[in-house]
Amino acid sequence: MEFSRGTVTTPFFMPIGTYGAVKTLAPGEVRELGAQVILSNTYHLYLRPGLELMGRFGGIHKFMGWDGPILTDSGGFQIFSLATLRKLDDDGVTFQSHLNGSLHRFTPEKAIDMQRVLGADLVMVLDECPSGDASLAEWQEALRRTTAWARRCLDRFNATEPRYGHPQNLFCIVQGGTDPQLRRQSTEALLALGPEVSCYALGGVAVGEPKEELFATLELMNTLLPGDKPRYLMGVGTPADLVRAVSLGMDMFDCVLPTRNARNGQLFTPFGTLNIRNSRYRDDFAPVQENCDCPLCTQFSRAYLRHLFATREVLGLRLATAHNLRFYLRLMAHLRTAIREGRFQRWSREFLSRYEGEQA
Amino acid sequence: MEFSRGTVTTPFFMPIGTYGAVKTLAPGEVRELGAQVILSNTYHLYLRPGLELMGRFGGIHKFMGWDGPILTDSGGFQIFSLATLRKLDDDGVTFQSHLNGSLHRFTPEKAIDMQRVLGADLVMVLDECPSGDASLAEWQEALRRTTAWARRCLDRFNATEPRYGHPQNLFCIVQGGTDPQLRRQSTEALLALGPEVSCYALGGVAVGEPKEELFATLELMNTLLPGDKPRYLMGVGTPADLVRAVSLGMDMFDCVLPTRNARNGQLFTPFGTLNIRNSRYRDDFAPVQENCDCPLCTQFSRAYLRHLFATREVLGLRLATAHNLRFYLRLMAHLRTAIREGRFQRWSREFLSRYEGEQA
Repeated sequence: MEFSRGTVTTPFFMPIGTYGAVKTLAPGEVRELGAQVILSNTYHLYLRPGLELMGRFGGIHKFMGWDGPILTDSGGFQIFSLATLRKLDDDGVTFQSHLNGSLHRFTPEKAIDMQRVLGADLVMVLDECPSGDASLAEWQEALRRTTAWARRCLDRFNATEPRYGHPQNLFCIVQGGTDPQLRRQSTEALLALGPEVSCYALGGVAVGEPKEELFATLELMNTLLPGDKPRYLMGVGTPADLVRAVSLGMDMFDCVLPTRNARNGQLFTPFGTLNIRNSRYRDDFAPVQENCDCPLCTQFSRAYLRHLFATREVLGLRLATAHNLRFYLRLMAHLRTAIREGRFQRWSREFLSRYEGEQA
Repeated sequence: MEFSRGTVTTPFFMPIGTYGAVKTLAPGEVRELGAQVILSNTYHLYLRPGLELMGRFGGIHKFMGWDGPILTDSGGFQIFSLATLRKLDDDGVTFQSHLNGSLHRFTPEKAIDMQRVLGADLVMVLDECPSGDASLAEWQEALRRTTAWARRCLDRFNATEPRYGHPQNLFCIVQGGTDPQLRRQSTEALLALGPEVSCYALGGVAVGEPKEELFATLELMNTLLPGDKPRYLMGVGTPADLVRAVSLGMDMFDCVLPTRNARNGQLFTPFGTLNIRNSRYRDDFAPVQENCDCPLCTQFSRAYLRHLFATREVLGLRLATAHNLRFYLRLMAHLRTAIREGRFQRWSREFLSRYEGEQA
């Protein structure tokens, strides 16, 4: 993908910087770990520090000190997963802040306006995202709204200009849960919006649905979405999920797993995960992952990391986060190389067999 | 000071790595900030991860990944400030861990044995450290014990060898509270121990005594201690305290102030301190300190740091810690240069006038 901030190669994984910081890390470190694009959350930044301040900062890049591309979501997913007392109508959604209960309202137009203020390179339409066990009727209703809102977002996007000189790209979000007919219907409606839509995102996944239904949906989407525009699988997933999703044509990913699990002591390795809090690592002087080039594995032992977690030292959170992100970002780099060299099938088979076969 | 790990120039400040990590920072960062020596706590490392494991690690340098000199204290101060149910006798001290109430006993010999296992470059005798408002009789008693324990520590030190190939240096601790006669008595007793004592530390300060009594004690010590051995002022203090203590002949310092206060949002500047949580910094786009070369001030604004504290982002703790340590370590570097160039009096007068004159 070409941005005014440089070229980004797919497939790629976006570390999450909810409040304008990838938790525990500085922007330069995130770059060093191999990140090309960072994701940040409109809902959270809207609440803190607030968009008026973000505008005076000159946008999110200056705010957080990240000079690469940034994707912001529309706030839709957070409203449906975090906010209390949601009230939904065809015009928009009214909700209470999860922080202090204060009342707010987002509309499709406001979602675009907010992301113009934030100035992200990639901006998302406002969508309605039901839970994975919602009824078909609920999914149909969500789909109808999401489609109408996508149109309104696109209109607002076309009627407004970027504020900080660099172009922004609009993503539409395919909804429809795990129902093939709804997914087809959603995709066709979004394709009909025309070529101003830069990319297509797959929403309504990783919301509690069974994994086989996720992959069935991906298989279907692979046949429906155009091949010349990036496809973003929102909120997925484990390293194995990512490899399988890439084999089904997905290009972009974000997920809290590597960073959140790191803070709980769970580390990713080519042989699966390990939890560093386990007493078996008390006197394990080996690195978390042999030959890993991250700041943790090149300098410190499992025993030291366990000690940092046992004594609640912040450095432990940092090192674990850096390792997990490096694991994810290196995985994507390996996938890109394997694809370029025409050996993706074999590479991914070997990776999955090792990753799912045994525990470290 | 000459170490097998290189030369250290005085005066210097030692960042504190209680559990084998300077809170929130990696060893390479601490080095980058200008630290020459790190202090770590025998009491804490004895409890977690335990000395058996430290021995198997090959000592504290390998454990924490710091290749410069390290000073460990004897555990005395922590026993008197943290442990519960202390029981003191002439042979040693029995105490309950502040973590789980388990029972432990330190003797002077054990303090040396533990620090042989840790392998610090600078090791301290076990001392008794009464509070700043203790009675004269209590100070006399503490002094008697500290003097006897220093002799036993030195004997054990002379009877044992370093475990990891590099030499270790023994510090004795002058006690005596704020009483000139006791301080004189303590100093004379320690000087009588002979030349194996590498340095003299001033203990029993920064324990609640009035500041003018601290400086009166320093004035006295300046006349009593030999000029050719480093003098370590334990646990002091503010930037202004350090400047004044250097003018009274002190060479080495450690203090939790820069790191602990950073985590509470208090930042040091040449014009005094500021608390970044204050709402006045909400839209203050200036750096915390103009022209500061630390990772915070070169990249981020006061408003962003305040946002990180407001959203409890770990990055905020890191950046504030880095700034405060850089402030302390740069202060020491400026003092060293001013001393070398014969303009210490003028430099320190200007610093104190600016630092104590107004608030940032």
